[in-house]
Amino acid sequence: MAAEIEQNSEQFSELLARPGLRIERIISTGQCSPPDFWYDQDEGEWVVLLQGEAQLRFADEAKARHLRAGDHLDIAPHRRHRVDWTAPDQTTIWLAIFYRA
Amino acid sequence: MAAEIEQNSEQFSELLARPGLRIERIISTGQCSPPDFWYDQDEGEWVVLLQGEAQLRFADEAKARHLRAGDHLDIAPHRRHRVDWTAPDQTTIWLAIFYRA
Repeated sequence: MAAEIEQNSEQFSELLARPGLRIERIISTGQCSPPDFWYDQDEGEWVVLLQGEAQLRFADEAKARHLRAGDHLDIAPHRRHRVDWTAPDQTTIWLAIFYRA
Repeated sequence: MAAEIEQNSEQFSELLARPGLRIERIISTGQCSPPDFWYDQDEGEWVVLLQGEAQLRFADEAKARHLRAGDHLDIAPHRRHRVDWTAPDQTTIWLAIFYRA
């Protein structure tokens, strides 16, 4: 059921790619990271929530951070993190800036 | 009348500063660039309109580009540009990413 799989995926769009810099828009509709999955990246990532709501969890923090539109944070290289939750009833839009740190 | 001057200025907030990368939020309430003023920058600038409306003009184009929320564009180093107009009746929010090109 390809259509269903597509509907259940986050949508990634690369808006800019330059040496040492990448800007992505990510659209979530209730998705979260797979169980026990952690992002562990070589790059720094600055992320801002443009719309919707999400819970982002750092491996070195006990509680997830609740993000609303306008909230932003900087994720250091190799600081493990995951998306615990995005709002199931609305579209959540992230802008992520990956940079050589 | 300091308060009035402040009210008539755009508000710049630096959200991230890293070597070769700077992220700024700019809040406009009807301001535009001074007459005959052109930005001419050493850095590349990727800009996205988060809220409001604006007209951005490039010196090498006859007509200004009308930007609405979600519109984004990349400005090459030394490509001269100015803000011709921002919506006078609403708050316009820009996110600008300056990068070493």
